[in-house]
Amino acid sequence: MAAAASLFRGAARGPPALAFARALRSAPPEPAGRGARRAALAAAGALGGLGLALGLWRRQAALAAAREDEEEKELRQRFMAPPVSGLRELRRRRREVRSRMELLIMETQAEVCRALAALDPGASFAVDSWERKEGGGGISCVLQDGEVFEKAGVNVSVVSGLLSEEAARQMRSRGKSLKAKDGKLPFCAMGVSSVIHPKNPHVPTMHFNYRYFEIEEADGTIQWWFGGGTDLTPTYLNEEDAVHFHKTLKEACDKHDLKLYPKYKKWCDDYFYIKHRGERRGIGGIFFDDMDSPSKEEVFQFVKSCAKAVVPCYIPIVKKHCHDSFTPEEKLWQQLRRGRYVEFNLVYDRGTKFGLLTPGSRIESILMSLPLTARWEYMHNPPESSKEAEILEVLRNPKDWVH
Amino acid sequence: MAAAASLFRGAARGPPALAFARALRSAPPEPAGRGARRAALAAAGALGGLGLALGLWRRQAALAAAREDEEEKELRQRFMAPPVSGLRELRRRRREVRSRMELLIMETQAEVCRALAALDPGASFAVDSWERKEGGGGISCVLQDGEVFEKAGVNVSVVSGLLSEEAARQMRSRGKSLKAKDGKLPFCAMGVSSVIHPKNPHVPTMHFNYRYFEIEEADGTIQWWFGGGTDLTPTYLNEEDAVHFHKTLKEACDKHDLKLYPKYKKWCDDYFYIKHRGERRGIGGIFFDDMDSPSKEEVFQFVKSCAKAVVPCYIPIVKKHCHDSFTPEEKLWQQLRRGRYVEFNLVYDRGTKFGLLTPGSRIESILMSLPLTARWEYMHNPPESSKEAEILEVLRNPKDWVH
Repeated sequence: MAAAASLFRGAARGPPALAFARALRSAPPEPAGRGARRAALAAAGALGGLGLALGLWRRQAALAAAREDEEEKELRQRFMAPPVSGLRELRRRRREVRSRMELLIMETQAEVCRALAALDPGASFAVDSWERKEGGGGISCVLQDGEVFEKAGVNVSVVSGLLSEEAARQMRSRGKSLKAKDGKLPFCAMGVSSVIHPKNPHVPTMHFNYRYFEIEEADGTIQWWFGGGTDLTPTYLNEEDAVHFHKTLKEACDKHDLKLYPKYKKWCDDYFYIKHRGERRGIGGIFFDDMDSPSKEEVFQFVKSCAKAVVPCYIPIVKKHCHDSFTPEEKLWQQLRRGRYVEFNLVYDRGTKFGLLTPGSRIESILMSLPLTARWEYMHNPPESSKEAEILEVLRNPKDWVH
Repeated sequence: MAAAASLFRGAARGPPALAFARALRSAPPEPAGRGARRAALAAAGALGGLGLALGLWRRQAALAAAREDEEEKELRQRFMAPPVSGLRELRRRRREVRSRMELLIMETQAEVCRALAALDPGASFAVDSWERKEGGGGISCVLQDGEVFEKAGVNVSVVSGLLSEEAARQMRSRGKSLKAKDGKLPFCAMGVSSVIHPKNPHVPTMHFNYRYFEIEEADGTIQWWFGGGTDLTPTYLNEEDAVHFHKTLKEACDKHDLKLYPKYKKWCDDYFYIKHRGERRGIGGIFFDDMDSPSKEEVFQFVKSCAKAVVPCYIPIVKKHCHDSFTPEEKLWQQLRRGRYVEFNLVYDRGTKFGLLTPGSRIESILMSLPLTARWEYMHNPPESSKEAEILEVLRNPKDWVH
């Protein structure tokens, strides 16, 4: 709880705190909001003498205020900021997967931020709530230049509106039919995504992203799917860490279907491929997209297991190595690998490319995945049999870490 | 000449020197090469007694050797390495624009490398001659981690072969007809390109590129065009430097046509636009492509003027500021701007994107344009009226520097 309190010190400072309060007050629909209360009190006062009515209103107002305080407290304990759709709306539609997914991504954000902040006590997360003009918004949490983490970002976004032509084209190219009504496709997309770049070259970078998509077609049917993944990018290979990371993911997958881990492990190796280098970005993990079977409930449960595996996958590795000593040469190699990370994200990553080309997207949240610092040396080739060559070998020829 | 000598120390060391010697020996066609000489001597010796014939052969061999030494000396004085097409071949076809352009890009490479090396006496250029399996090759000259320059690359490439489907598609989308014979389009492309990233944040980054393209269509007609440009990316605005840079380019353009500078200045501002940031990469210069009129000779002369303007554009600015003092904050701002440079090059630059997607291209030469180091901070916004805000304003709203 100490970690959570310190997190909220970050959130309670300056503009983010204002955004928090503003979002709370404006969260629709709020039948007993402060504005309504004030108006009711004024109206009751104007009546004069009607003591009974006034007393009733006062009691109702006090109850509403207490309820609001309670909710604010709950929000502060559970999340980094109020959910985009408003807590009441999420409760009202609590059975819908859409609402449950929004709660899951909010909880995952808070869980990961707390776990990271607990390891880097001097630093705190800056929390930005932002709105998207075209519909929806998000919450970006970024810790920068800490003792343990160079840059750690955990971003939630919940956006809706009409699908852009470019987005529809991309989705159709992946085999979706998407029949539009008057050329329009209403959609709702939400997700949590995160990249953690630690300072110490013996602590790997980690990325995860879990997302849900809904599109309404011309005849009113809803197309939906989930996507996501968690993957690790070490500067140096540590087999024990690689096995722990993959094993934890495999256990999360195996609870649902034994076929999932091998399939999504391979997909991950294929997706994070820096073609012009002939290398993968990291040592993989899992990656999947367009997952819409066996049922919405079952896929949601699978995604939930994956999201819950993020902290146990990664945090033990950070704890194990964050005080390891390192040489300037090891730091330099980390910086060169950061350069490759930038190359993958800017040249190949579908999400980044799509975000950069989408009008109205929040660039700072998209590019939060880039490292604080990176380096490019002309013709840098590590010597044979070096530790640097060892990781390159694995990036060129992915291994199976769990059998 | 001292600078040239020190440059060639770089070239004469290890693999580059071998490449130099190899290229010299294998340069086609060499009617009086060392191999031929040896064979001739052996043959003459076998005849025995025929003193006259032997004397004649010996004289011829000595003359050929002297000519070869003379040529090697000339090559070393004029260029960073032997031209891809071989000096004799270039001489044989000396009237063709293709040969004159290859000599121009080789001379420009040497001229720029010498001018830079003279300013950074402790550092030297690594010279790599490389071959392209599919046809042609190039010479990459890179100075890294010097006193004045963080990374300076000057690259020449002369490649030929059959145009890839992707390349043809891109060119057609720019309005070229390109009628292929059996789906094949023989092409030849050559160019010099360079990015100079200095250490001192008061010395701007400079980029230039001049290129020539020929494509043979089904009916045997040759489509040809030139492209290129020179542009400046300062970390901080210095109006005097901006005016000097643009004025020097304008003078080069004005010798040919008064319409060229305004047209290509605007094209430059439009091309180097980082759309997702709403900023240009730098304060511009000139940029043009598909230039094929009024005549091949006239366009070549224009390109020559531009190439000859590179050194007078830039070197005085480096000399003026390379000993300026700077603060850690200024260095940090430079690093953030380097991050934007990487964003432009990896996300938007046509040449880079095309290179990365083309099989067989030399990745190290393409990505030599990336800075040695770069930085990304989440939500970095310089305060109003700061020197950082001043340059941002110009990057958002390009100015006319010369009237």
